Amino acid sequence: MDEKQKSDFVDLAHRLADAAKAETLSYFRGGALATQSKGEVGFDPVTAADRAAERIMREMIEAERPDDGILGEEFGPKESASGLTWVLDPIDGTRGYISGTPTWGTLIALHDGSQPVVGLIDQPYIGERFTGAGELATFSGPHGSSGLQVSATTQISNAVIFTTFPEIGSATEQAAFHALASECRLTRYGMDCYAYALLAMGQIDLVIEAGLHAYDIQAPIAVIEAAGGIVTTWGGGAADQGGRVIAAATPQLHEAALEVLARHV
Amino acid sequence: MDEKQKSDFVDLAHRLADAAKAETLSYFRGGALATQSKGEVGFDPVTAADRAAERIMREMIEAERPDDGILGEEFGPKESASGLTWVLDPIDGTRGYISGTPTWGTLIALHDGSQPVVGLIDQPYIGERFTGAGELATFSGPHGSSGLQVSATTQISNAVIFTTFPEIGSATEQAAFHALASECRLTRYGMDCYAYALLAMGQIDLVIEAGLHAYDIQAPIAVIEAAGGIVTTWGGGAADQGGRVIAAATPQLHEAALEVLARHV
Repeated sequence: MDEKQKSDFVDLAHRLADAAKAETLSYFRGGALATQSKGEVGFDPVTAADRAAERIMREMIEAERPDDGILGEEFGPKESASGLTWVLDPIDGTRGYISGTPTWGTLIALHDGSQPVVGLIDQPYIGERFTGAGELATFSGPHGSSGLQVSATTQISNAVIFTTFPEIGSATEQAAFHALASECRLTRYGMDCYAYALLAMGQIDLVIEAGLHAYDIQAPIAVIEAAGGIVTTWGGGAADQGGRVIAAATPQLHEAALEVLARHV
Repeated sequence: MDEKQKSDFVDLAHRLADAAKAETLSYFRGGALATQSKGEVGFDPVTAADRAAERIMREMIEAERPDDGILGEEFGPKESASGLTWVLDPIDGTRGYISGTPTWGTLIALHDGSQPVVGLIDQPYIGERFTGAGELATFSGPHGSSGLQVSATTQISNAVIFTTFPEIGSATEQAAFHALASECRLTRYGMDCYAYALLAMGQIDLVIEAGLHAYDIQAPIAVIEAAGGIVTTWGGGAADQGGRVIAAATPQLHEAALEVLARHV
């Protein structure tokens, strides 16, 4: 993929995020469309928002890139004829979304058959966007724009670690996470994909999750790698298909954290 | 306190929040002042931000309301000669602040000797402000302004419950929280004072914390009561001095939750 192509893909990812944002915000916190549909039996604002946002992104991809595949959370996968696949999670953090927290996100990635090459994490309510594509790592938010650069933290004892739920997944996964977290400087919960964005920004140092889908992690992988960080499975392998995932700011921190996890799984 | 006085106090609270915001954002996420001071031995951005924000608010109160008392997190209390005391927490959620999350807040309350009569929760980074004073309950944010109204949830099984840390406080407090949370529809963590703001907005239904200081809870009390909700200690008493606190959307939900907590403390 040359620079012109990559730039076109990043541009499309941004336009997809813009289109998704209009849908997700319409239903967020009892927005216009949520209120309008309130009387309908079985109406669920987050499902409506999730579907509407994925539908508009699919339509745009199909119109502009008809040969690309699509893997989304809400609808069936579309095979790729081009070797490229768009990987979409319209609302990552639906529990945060239904609680009104501003830390859910729209995840958009482009996978080239071997890895995610473009990734975008969008927080529509705050108006923050984190983009990664190879060397390109950019942030834009309500107070300005900048590059993205992970922290230089190498020691677990200096690390700030995040995960979404203290239960993590299975009892084994929970025990492994808490063994690692107990060695860290600070443990925090509840941020969903926003934690990966904070890691890419250099604000936090480790994110650990389990039970992820491909569409939960491909955008974070591209953003964090572009910002200088590392994302793998707990076993150190490619994380683009999800499962047990660790994101770390530095190779030293990553290696030290894998060792702790390995003692418990 | 007549309407004109209350309106003047709300106006001052907003100007205090504006002044504090300039300070807290200067140090947030490695902002200008944090970066500038990075080489200094023992420099801690959150302490610097906390003190700078409280200092400017104190100066404004002392200039405009010299007879009012001040109770803040960072500096010694100032006795009230007027019967009114300003209660300030420049950064509630310092752990969230140092992690770069956008869910810390500046808390400003005015206590009349028996209860908080004005409360303001400000989230400077997002640009959200929640104000309560008697009948007045208002929200302003990046997508517009509105009133504040708690949810109509009466059943624990329908409730969304928040607290900041899964550990809560003592082992007893932790057990009591989790007994209640296990009956709720959804449990989420990590939001600090932002959870009280979400409750006032009607987005969530219960917030439980322990070990609070007066300055952690007085602003949330005024905001939530103005929005129609209830804030007490776990024993059902006045919560303005902190300790174990429960905030609930409705009297039915409050009563049901107190019963569950009482079985465990």
